Amino acid sequence: MKNRIITISREFGSGGRTVGKQVAKKLGIACYDQELIEKIAEKSGLSEDFVREKSEYTPYGNWFANAFADRDVRGMTIQDHIWTMQRQMILELAEKESCVIVGRCADYILRDEADLLTVFIHASMQQRAQRIVRVYGEREDSPEKRLKDKDKRRRAYYQFYTDMEWGDVRNYQVALDSGILGIDTCVKIIADLY
Amino acid sequence: MKNRIITISREFGSGGRTVGKQVAKKLGIACYDQELIEKIAEKSGLSEDFVREKSEYTPYGNWFANAFADRDVRGMTIQDHIWTMQRQMILELAEKESCVIVGRCADYILRDEADLLTVFIHASMQQRAQRIVRVYGEREDSPEKRLKDKDKRRRAYYQFYTDMEWGDVRNYQVALDSGILGIDTCVKIIADLY
Repeated sequence: MKNRIITISREFGSGGRTVGKQVAKKLGIACYDQELIEKIAEKSGLSEDFVREKSEYTPYGNWFANAFADRDVRGMTIQDHIWTMQRQMILELAEKESCVIVGRCADYILRDEADLLTVFIHASMQQRAQRIVRVYGEREDSPEKRLKDKDKRRRAYYQFYTDMEWGDVRNYQVALDSGILGIDTCVKIIADLY
Repeated sequence: MKNRIITISREFGSGGRTVGKQVAKKLGIACYDQELIEKIAEKSGLSEDFVREKSEYTPYGNWFANAFADRDVRGMTIQDHIWTMQRQMILELAEKESCVIVGRCADYILRDEADLLTVFIHASMQQRAQRIVRVYGEREDSPEKRLKDKDKRRRAYYQFYTDMEWGDVRNYQVALDSGILGIDTCVKIIADLY
């Protein structure tokens, strides 16, 4: 029987990662997010920061940038290699155990491979801006600018590798506004559904 | 204090209306859908079928059609008049009582007027096709064609009167796939949130 996997896609600053962790804790299963980055970094010899950046974001907010990136003899960019490693790890995880996977196009990668509960967590710009300042602190750029940039690059990454639209409600079984409903309510709904 | 209103937007054939009715029954509040059509028909002297069609769908699938429609001395089409009546009725309902309102851009109309729980119900094309044949029977056109046509005209109507995108996950607090989760689960989640 296929393992039951919860995939959580999320807007930057919506608290989707926190939701994922708390759902996993409540259900007594593992939550993969940072762990995937660490594993890829270990396997590839690349730094964790580099992998984090390359494993969910396009470099300049659109896939055209990819056309100008360095390629190896097979025509693959470093980002393509990270995608391949990431995809393989996610498939292995799904084979091994029931778990929560945050981001990384896991919903797409596992669409035919696991018994999925696909979730999208979002919140208004204002509530996300407050959250990222609280969690990550002030930066030179305004929180709104940081959010727009992150969303744009994450959407472009998703679209490039999956050819599907990120954040299109039709791709998710459940989509929740964490800003209005609150993190705890989101956790409860997802854990109950599982 | 503002009344608590559940607005349910839905793809045609997703069972969103059934979800709305069952949520209302469970919570012991009213559900408005057919009732709104009846009231507008009564007030305007137009037939219910005509109102049903004109109160959620653009005539030819895009708002350009509106440019060529018959207009009165104030430049309003019959559809504009129905929109105005519908809007007024929805505002009056929200003033009067807590309730469920299905479709009719109620989420947009009440965005600053009530304590809202905004819901979007959707399902895959395949599951909706099965449902409309079961509920409404076979027609000359294929169920897929009927669904695409309805979705397209409903989206165009919503966009024309609200200037927002119908089915964009960011506009709803909760979006659920009724095809995978099932009607009963959708009802439970929404009633619990209320």
